[in-house]
Amino acid sequence: MRIHGGDWNSHIEQFGEIPLDFSANLSPLGIPQAVREAAVHALAHAEHYPDPYCRTLRSAISTSLGIPLSYCLCGNGAADLLFRMVLAVKPQTALLAVPTFSEYEAALKTVNCSIRRYHLSESEEFTLTDRFLGAVTPDIDLVILCSPNNPTGLTVSPALLQKIILRCEENGALLAVDSCFEDFLDNPEAHSLIPNLTEHPNVLVIKAFTKLYAMPGLRLGYALSSNTALLERMRDMGQPWPVSSLAQEAGIAAVGETAYVQSVRSLIRIQRKRMIGELRALGLRVIPAEANFLLFQGKSGLKQELQRQGILIRCCADYVGLDETWYRIAIRTESENTRLLAALKKVIG
Amino acid sequence: MRIHGGDWNSHIEQFGEIPLDFSANLSPLGIPQAVREAAVHALAHAEHYPDPYCRTLRSAISTSLGIPLSYCLCGNGAADLLFRMVLAVKPQTALLAVPTFSEYEAALKTVNCSIRRYHLSESEEFTLTDRFLGAVTPDIDLVILCSPNNPTGLTVSPALLQKIILRCEENGALLAVDSCFEDFLDNPEAHSLIPNLTEHPNVLVIKAFTKLYAMPGLRLGYALSSNTALLERMRDMGQPWPVSSLAQEAGIAAVGETAYVQSVRSLIRIQRKRMIGELRALGLRVIPAEANFLLFQGKSGLKQELQRQGILIRCCADYVGLDETWYRIAIRTESENTRLLAALKKVIG
Repeated sequence: MRIHGGDWNSHIEQFGEIPLDFSANLSPLGIPQAVREAAVHALAHAEHYPDPYCRTLRSAISTSLGIPLSYCLCGNGAADLLFRMVLAVKPQTALLAVPTFSEYEAALKTVNCSIRRYHLSESEEFTLTDRFLGAVTPDIDLVILCSPNNPTGLTVSPALLQKIILRCEENGALLAVDSCFEDFLDNPEAHSLIPNLTEHPNVLVIKAFTKLYAMPGLRLGYALSSNTALLERMRDMGQPWPVSSLAQEAGIAAVGETAYVQSVRSLIRIQRKRMIGELRALGLRVIPAEANFLLFQGKSGLKQELQRQGILIRCCADYVGLDETWYRIAIRTESENTRLLAALKKVIG
Repeated sequence: MRIHGGDWNSHIEQFGEIPLDFSANLSPLGIPQAVREAAVHALAHAEHYPDPYCRTLRSAISTSLGIPLSYCLCGNGAADLLFRMVLAVKPQTALLAVPTFSEYEAALKTVNCSIRRYHLSESEEFTLTDRFLGAVTPDIDLVILCSPNNPTGLTVSPALLQKIILRCEENGALLAVDSCFEDFLDNPEAHSLIPNLTEHPNVLVIKAFTKLYAMPGLRLGYALSSNTALLERMRDMGQPWPVSSLAQEAGIAAVGETAYVQSVRSLIRIQRKRMIGELRALGLRVIPAEANFLLFQGKSGLKQELQRQGILIRCCADYVGLDETWYRIAIRTESENTRLLAALKKVIG
């Protein structure tokens, strides 16, 4: 079994109730009303095949990002694009910086790729440093980075990212950057690789609607690159209709939700600072997260104890490089965070 | 570009109007109301990840089919399962009976599989005969058959199918049977391989909700096999959340729509007979279809002429083994079929 946050169904099976879910890193403000309405509206056309080319959706995304339409490919969630990318590239050797999202390894295994793991150092609070450049050796075909990284919540610094792009370029490697949590940063523009796409065709950015608009049940992600031949190959590596009509119309509505995104970002900024402070006040070791989730260290068994109080958090025992004393929690609304803190105090206190 | 029926969006772009669509082989009765309502209901939970194991849906499907839960894997449409199957098996050599659905070749190409094509004979009206057994040689790892076959509308006879299963078994080949249109047959039980699954773990059946319940915009298909290790490998060959929450709840509702299925089947039986007769009366060569679509031969350019009258049909020029004089049409409601016949008379007459 592949372990992931948001396994709501297992919790309900075990406890018979809907949990307060801190285990999935989603916007705490729920699906925007206009997005919900767009999905219902799309049901009226659901007896027709979805547009295999997602023309209107890709046009909305590329216009909002200021890039050509041809730089954008949509998929059935970001994970769909990850698997397609791996199948399109068929790398012999790929480099990951661990701990990170486990689906990179799952995807690489589908093509029997040899996986090289660069271990982020706990003593450096899992920050990616210039030392990583030494790991980008000429035999590496593909580098996958997650920024902000799941589960640490830390970005790769823009300066280091530029060096990594160039090193990959020199070595003929593709650099895939999973930026699914980038829009939760205080200043996403400072980290975005979108302005670099034209100049660097060896860069592929993967993003999702799932997290920012709290719509994981609808499934929608996209990949961006100026290497349009790669995007076309990715299209060919799977079924022609990956994105449902409902996800396409929901995505078009979501692109217009700029005020919603501002609200999410400002809520996260305040609550992230609060949660880092409060957890540290409880004597827990907290990694200084930048996005909408954080990694902390506590006693083992914490997940089960909180679950008995109806709260779901992510135990990181299955992440390469972490153990059962590390936990990941989403940053949620003020009152939900208060509930989590109260439960934690009871358990730790 | 991969060519498929149901390319509604291209028609709208070109003609600025919604076509009467005979190019996609879908139930003409539209999405059942209960299925639509289930999808709307599921939106309430869409801010949570879908169940990656589709537990409730798989339970509904397997109960309705009388098979163990473990024999069933759900996917983002039947095509998703096809690509996963190919990636799980990674065949070196695969056998197809052409003309057939083009996505089999598209999927096989993702793993650089060598494709052997058995050509169905036009003089035998594209019927699969015992001669096919000779093509199942020991070097074949995978045989993919479509029954009823897209685009011919013909089934593989149950007796021949049994011989093919045994021949594949002897040769250690997997037999994948795409039965997406089986439920439109007059007597689907006579053709179903479901009773054979336990005895023959080398058989994989792929089916869809898309066609029978007219819900291609929602994306839902499933694979059946007693080879549960293969199904688990197929799960591992793609992202963990292929099926949206909406498709899962819609599918559960669809399984209960037995009266709807009876209505579809009885409508198709009557209208299929009518359309075969009427098209022949127009002097067209018609393959004696068994499912919800039929293949006929007419003059080239027919698709464009009908399109100018707002009717979309499938030109089969891109099918290996057919040319631009062959067309595929769905069987639709009495009045829609009447409209198509009138338009055809105008064009041919």
